[in-house]
Amino acid sequence: MLPFARVTIIGLGLIGSSIARAVRQAMPTVRLTGHDADAGVRETARALDLADDVTDTAGAAVIDADLVILCVPVGAIGAAARDIAADLPADAIVSDVGSCKAEVARALADALPGVAIVPAHPVAGTEQSGPRAGFATLFHHRWCILTPPEGASEAAVERVASFWRRLGADVELMTPEHHDRVLAVTSHLPHLIAYTIVGTASDLETVTQSEVIKYSAGGFRDFTRIAASDPTMWRDVFLTNREAVLEMLQRFSEDLTALQRAIRVGDGAQLFDQFTRTRAIRRSIVDQGQDDAAPDFGRVHE
Amino acid sequence: MLPFARVTIIGLGLIGSSIARAVRQAMPTVRLTGHDADAGVRETARALDLADDVTDTAGAAVIDADLVILCVPVGAIGAAARDIAADLPADAIVSDVGSCKAEVARALADALPGVAIVPAHPVAGTEQSGPRAGFATLFHHRWCILTPPEGASEAAVERVASFWRRLGADVELMTPEHHDRVLAVTSHLPHLIAYTIVGTASDLETVTQSEVIKYSAGGFRDFTRIAASDPTMWRDVFLTNREAVLEMLQRFSEDLTALQRAIRVGDGAQLFDQFTRTRAIRRSIVDQGQDDAAPDFGRVHE
Repeated sequence: MLPFARVTIIGLGLIGSSIARAVRQAMPTVRLTGHDADAGVRETARALDLADDVTDTAGAAVIDADLVILCVPVGAIGAAARDIAADLPADAIVSDVGSCKAEVARALADALPGVAIVPAHPVAGTEQSGPRAGFATLFHHRWCILTPPEGASEAAVERVASFWRRLGADVELMTPEHHDRVLAVTSHLPHLIAYTIVGTASDLETVTQSEVIKYSAGGFRDFTRIAASDPTMWRDVFLTNREAVLEMLQRFSEDLTALQRAIRVGDGAQLFDQFTRTRAIRRSIVDQGQDDAAPDFGRVHE
Repeated sequence: MLPFARVTIIGLGLIGSSIARAVRQAMPTVRLTGHDADAGVRETARALDLADDVTDTAGAAVIDADLVILCVPVGAIGAAARDIAADLPADAIVSDVGSCKAEVARALADALPGVAIVPAHPVAGTEQSGPRAGFATLFHHRWCILTPPEGASEAAVERVASFWRRLGADVELMTPEHHDRVLAVTSHLPHLIAYTIVGTASDLETVTQSEVIKYSAGGFRDFTRIAASDPTMWRDVFLTNREAVLEMLQRFSEDLTALQRAIRVGDGAQLFDQFTRTRAIRRSIVDQGQDDAAPDFGRVHE
């Protein structure tokens, strides 16, 4: 039994278009409808045949859906929900893929009173954006975190969980608040730091940008990948998950200051200790299949 | 004409053993000698047949060499140079692969007065260590920076440059001081930040280490790769290139504070601007072949 027969995806960027492709592959009999606020994206989605129907309005996309997934930047979730409110069938479940859950929960509850809402966050992505960037296996062996509000129907939660498992994801449940703290450290802080260092490196007077690019294989290039992520998505993440991000940032700054001091006073033992214990984490991430074991990210040296 | 007929490698870890493998492949007639201070590494090197001869002492390794490459952590360069001083042939050229060049130049000049010294830094590596981690193509399409001291023989510099080009590297010349500023930003600062954030993430009370590992695909895992690099090597780098690293760190901290403030006051425009300009750098790095074009570092989603 399929968890849903008619799935609508609002927002056909990297994540929305990957869900569409994954549904086509895993649940080919599902009737798939898509919509994007951008006419150019809709045209591309039609050319790629991402859905059975790509509608020009959000309302038309949801009119017979039993699952609606909002795949828009978190700052646009409230507006996207209001756009579908009038046309949403009474028994439809609404979900999303946003990277911040507490604020999203409030926005969805405000815009869609009485609707069954099961927010979700697939922890997967690439630095690419847009409907052409998606691919069907994006969620394989990645975690999808559901953050159902208190009192959510267990059946609705299980249907959404089953949907994500069929796309290849492992499903975990969390409160929105805990989700936001976990993601602040595993995703939001890393992005902020990557954006910062890439900016710092472009602003130097004594080292040219062309030198930074040329010698980036010394480590810098690893940061540029996530610093190439979608600017709108990430602006919204930081405005939305402000408190948790600021707290993690404060801790990071303290730890960085401690290492800075160790360098200044020449405390090699402290540096060595810190650099030793971080190796174990990498090993665990590889062991648990959240990254490849190949050295150097498996980069080809030809 | 080969630039050198008898090459000696002191230190058979990731870089030293990669040079050995690359020499075997690119210049098979070169007589290759190796030495490592660690008896276990010497044994492994012999088992892997990394060199024609693996000697038990550093002196025995250099006795008939025309090129000696010191592939030891930068903090051990002076001692390694002193170990070979008495046995070094008069016409041998000494080079190294250290990540900091100003301090290394001083250490080599002190230990080896009158010797032809051409320091080098191949900007290439992986997070793995030891003689088994090396591979012959590590230097392909990577830059190797030579930092010859003032008054160095042009012929000696050209022979070392030719050696590296035969291993597949592109060669660039720089002063040691400029090298240290460039690498402070493209390599040393990224490593310091990666080591810091991985440490910060392991020390949280509200988020467990197992959650950090589980949801690392949100961005965190990218940092863990370089935070798994060799602790001894990196301790030495930070103790040796102290001034340039502290200056870059100061700039990074200022830029991070500016973004922190933008988040606190909700300045979405500033965040968006910063996140937009960093995309171009990634594109240049990929265009110049210093990283793969494949999204997500080409990670397999199966």
